[in-house]
Amino acid sequence: MGLINNINKAFDHRIRLGIMSILMVNEYADFKTLKELLDVTDGNLASHAKALEQAEYIKVEKQFIGRKPNTRYSATSLGKVEFKKHIEALEKLIGK
Amino acid sequence: MGLINNINKAFDHRIRLGIMSILMVNEYADFKTLKELLDVTDGNLASHAKALEQAEYIKVEKQFIGRKPNTRYSATSLGKVEFKKHIEALEKLIGK
Repeated sequence: MGLINNINKAFDHRIRLGIMSILMVNEYADFKTLKELLDVTDGNLASHAKALEQAEYIKVEKQFIGRKPNTRYSATSLGKVEFKKHIEALEKLIGK
Repeated sequence: MGLINNINKAFDHRIRLGIMSILMVNEYADFKTLKELLDVTDGNLASHAKALEQAEYIKVEKQFIGRKPNTRYSATSLGKVEFKKHIEALEKLIGK
């Protein structure tokens, strides 16, 4: 069992850490908010959000606000549990 | 300035986090030791060590112990400083 085995590959990128960190403390965040908070491109955000969605760690809802399409994200229960484990593994690795 | 801007891309992979974490608390570690502690393949370890070496965050020394070649790694002063900053950025992001 290696030192890094509990570090979840699905979270092993700063953009994914950023998305999850935001969704751990906010019930929802829309695409634009995530993009601004993380200061990343549309393409980068979309691809990392997609990866988290495929792992079932976040949920995506597309809706209309008036006539404007809006995409909002939330962390799933599974995502929250797994992210906590990931953070614990990181803390253990760096000796905190 | 995004939430993740201080997260150093050079450390943004669990194998690199693992290498640095080990070299923060051990003056040296050889290839075999790192490989065993991290439970990774030769190729994976070599490629991530190379990336850290190119960033001048770790130093590689090749020597002979008797007739056996031995490759050992150590963190540079720059690597230690930058890794500490990276950890601080991670902690800030995850709200610790």
